[in-house]
Amino acid sequence: MNHARRKYAAEGAGTFVLVLFGCGSAATAGGNLGNLGVAMAFGLSLIAMAYVIGPVSGCHVNPAVSLAMFLQGKLSGRDLVGYIAAQLIGGTLASGLLYAIIESTGRAVTDLGQNGYGPGYGIGITAPMAIIVEIILTFVFVYTLLGVKATEATGKIAGIVIGLTLTFVHLLGIGLTGTSVNPARSLGPALWLGGDALSELWVFILAPLIGSVVAVWGVRRLYGRK
Amino acid sequence: MNHARRKYAAEGAGTFVLVLFGCGSAATAGGNLGNLGVAMAFGLSLIAMAYVIGPVSGCHVNPAVSLAMFLQGKLSGRDLVGYIAAQLIGGTLASGLLYAIIESTGRAVTDLGQNGYGPGYGIGITAPMAIIVEIILTFVFVYTLLGVKATEATGKIAGIVIGLTLTFVHLLGIGLTGTSVNPARSLGPALWLGGDALSELWVFILAPLIGSVVAVWGVRRLYGRK
Amino acid sequence: MNHARRKYAAEGAGTFVLVLFGCGSAATAGGNLGNLGVAMAFGLSLIAMAYVIGPVSGCHVNPAVSLAMFLQGKLSGRDLVGYIAAQLIGGTLASGLLYAIIESTGRAVTDLGQNGYGPGYGIGITAPMAIIVEIILTFVFVYTLLGVKATEATGKIAGIVIGLTLTFVHLLGIGLTGTSVNPARSLGPALWLGGDALSELWVFILAPLIGSVVAVWGVRRLYGRK
Amino acid sequence: MNHARRKYAAEGAGTFVLVLFGCGSAATAGGNLGNLGVAMAFGLSLIAMAYVIGPVSGCHVNPAVSLAMFLQGKLSGRDLVGYIAAQLIGGTLASGLLYAIIESTGRAVTDLGQNGYGPGYGIGITAPMAIIVEIILTFVFVYTLLGVKATEATGKIAGIVIGLTLTFVHLLGIGLTGTSVNPARSLGPALWLGGDALSELWVFILAPLIGSVVAVWGVRRLYGRK
Repeated sequence: MNHARRKYAAEGAGTFVLVLFGCGSAATAGGNLGNLGVAMAFGLSLIAMAYVIGPVSGCHVNPAVSLAMFLQGKLSGRDLVGYIAAQLIGGTLASGLLYAIIESTGRAVTDLGQNGYGPGYGIGITAPMAIIVEIILTFVFVYTLLGVKATEATGKIAGIVIGLTLTFVHLLGIGLTGTSVNPARSLGPALWLGGDALSELWVFILAPLIGSVVAVWGVRRLYGRK
Repeated sequence: MNHARRKYAAEGAGTFVLVLFGCGSAATAGGNLGNLGVAMAFGLSLIAMAYVIGPVSGCHVNPAVSLAMFLQGKLSGRDLVGYIAAQLIGGTLASGLLYAIIESTGRAVTDLGQNGYGPGYGIGITAPMAIIVEIILTFVFVYTLLGVKATEATGKIAGIVIGLTLTFVHLLGIGLTGTSVNPARSLGPALWLGGDALSELWVFILAPLIGSVVAVWGVRRLYGRK
Repeated sequence: MNHARRKYAAEGAGTFVLVLFGCGSAATAGGNLGNLGVAMAFGLSLIAMAYVIGPVSGCHVNPAVSLAMFLQGKLSGRDLVGYIAAQLIGGTLASGLLYAIIESTGRAVTDLGQNGYGPGYGIGITAPMAIIVEIILTFVFVYTLLGVKATEATGKIAGIVIGLTLTFVHLLGIGLTGTSVNPARSLGPALWLGGDALSELWVFILAPLIGSVVAVWGVRRLYGRK
Repeated sequence: MNHARRKYAAEGAGTFVLVLFGCGSAATAGGNLGNLGVAMAFGLSLIAMAYVIGPVSGCHVNPAVSLAMFLQGKLSGRDLVGYIAAQLIGGTLASGLLYAIIESTGRAVTDLGQNGYGPGYGIGITAPMAIIVEIILTFVFVYTLLGVKATEATGKIAGIVIGLTLTFVHLLGIGLTGTSVNPARSLGPALWLGGDALSELWVFILAPLIGSVVAVWGVRRLYGRK
């Protein structure tokens, strides 16, 4: 494989792992694990991928992160498209595998760890509030990720700090929107389940991208124009 | 922004994140998360902020910590005032956002992760015992924080050790007083909720500041007058 | 002891610890701990062993890992046999001790943390799906382990990243197959319990070894032929 | 303070923190936290103390650890006595404070996180089995602690690895004996509660010390006579 293809393959594989283990834990064992266990599944998956595929592609595994890197001038437009395509494919394949695993037990597949809002989802926040929440959750996640990379104060533990940030963002967010902060994590469940997950998908594409843009601005303000 | 303003903005933002995710997890998902999940939300939020805003402001995000730094001669009187003001504003804004999120579900807002004591709060300890408990909890937290910074034995993992200390302080403290150890974490819920949270607020301002003073003395004794 | 014997003893002791604490937590306290607690027991045991016996033997404590090291040319054929024998003996002794502990309470021993599938085990996936799941779980675990060692981006925290990966692999896998990814972890419970655990054992020997081979291939693709 | 007194004071303070937060979490919130939360309280307390008092006294906070250091020739006989006395005093004071906190709620104090065995304690293992279990738990904990210090493969993260080891030892042990592995952690609850906790105390003094001796032997075998 040439280097570009290897980077895209790494992003696809990393997103596959994140969605399979994060959404999969929620869908097959959410009641047993509680929100803490699900939040750990997302965070620890990201930690592992940060160290394995990070040296190859940077381990974005999230279109909102790739957008931020593009806005910071660290990712070319061509790679932005390649990265996002790979992430969406990886996440969708993971959701498909998860669908097959649950279906093999003979039960109807109604939970793939999809995001949502409104009555019957989490504590039942409204659609406008879901947009605000996802913008803030993504802002905090991407702001931390960019900050950790910018200051280099973390050295080799950067991947651990970023993964644990994804965990605490989920601790609050699971009960509100399920926590997307990542369009590639929301697409797969929506495509395979349809219904509310699909009709509400736009929120979990739009809001994380807005949060990412705000985070790029916030980090620039925080550290000044060096 | 000039450097002082950037430090204050960092402290405000960091306190906002700590209160939003810590108190927010308790208020919206405390039953699901249990005390362990809430304790993780506080600790992991602090870890993230330590690495992101730490290089700018030191990441106190807590008036009791800023007081200790002032007593150690590491923070000017002017910055002490600026830091504390920013922390109080950041925490209060976070509680306000949390209020709006919960209100959007149509339910009455009675829980913003406020601190307390007495019958009906946690295991129901008395007011004098709540003061003792908060002094001890704050002492252990600030003593560890100052110790970690003083010995430099931790290097880049200092932020992780300090955050995990906030977690274990919560593991014991949530059932007793809800764990303040930080006046800026207690102010917001009290202002927005009023009632017991507001009338008991003085305990969660006074006791953490006392605990901080004792910790400064304890650390000086521990390492000697070098 | 000569060096080879010391390595084999280390692998036996390390596997003993992993199986005693991982399977033991599941068997004696699984209901209290939940899947998250059991997953932590496996992951943290591996972290400890990575730092203690790692400098002696590399801390494989898993025939699937030793096979991968052999395929990468980092373990001789003679050591492959010695390592696997030691791992199987260590794991079986741990299961035997666990049997004795539970038996001493006077209750029938029906749970030693055994793996399984089908109706009555976890969510009840089919045998073919159990094979696919174990291949994927092992792939992700061994792929991360090999990747972390290959890139040296992790330095001293490699053991922590590998252990936390075993944790998140369990977060998804416990509800599906109980998570083997390690024939030496599955052998002991099967030998001592017999029944379904023994008749289904072949899945948890075969699938992890296949997953390991695929991981060796995947890592070579990821980092290119350097 | 002279240096010896400072070391003893550090050991007393460290043991106070370990017992207050570990046993205190079990006694006041064990049902909410589950065994995982209690295991985290013990482990994270030890992590914090490792970095704060470690540079002063080595952070044994456990007579079984001090005995191992003495047997390895790293602690004088005089300091062995001083360390253990300080640890026993620190632990007993912590249990006393915990007694007062619980008593202030008006309820009878029957749980201070004491160790035990037999019918009505955990899964109800027998006394001989409790001795075996505590020897093994202490062996694994002290063996890891000595190994981590011997190999220096962990560098600055040694304290984290040792603390997480205390956590996983608790994950298995809480349901069996409550997990002592530390006579100074068992003494306080026994003295304040009396009854079974006091009559069974000898097990939790004797077995950890035996486990420690075996660990010193095991580590010498593992790394060879260098």
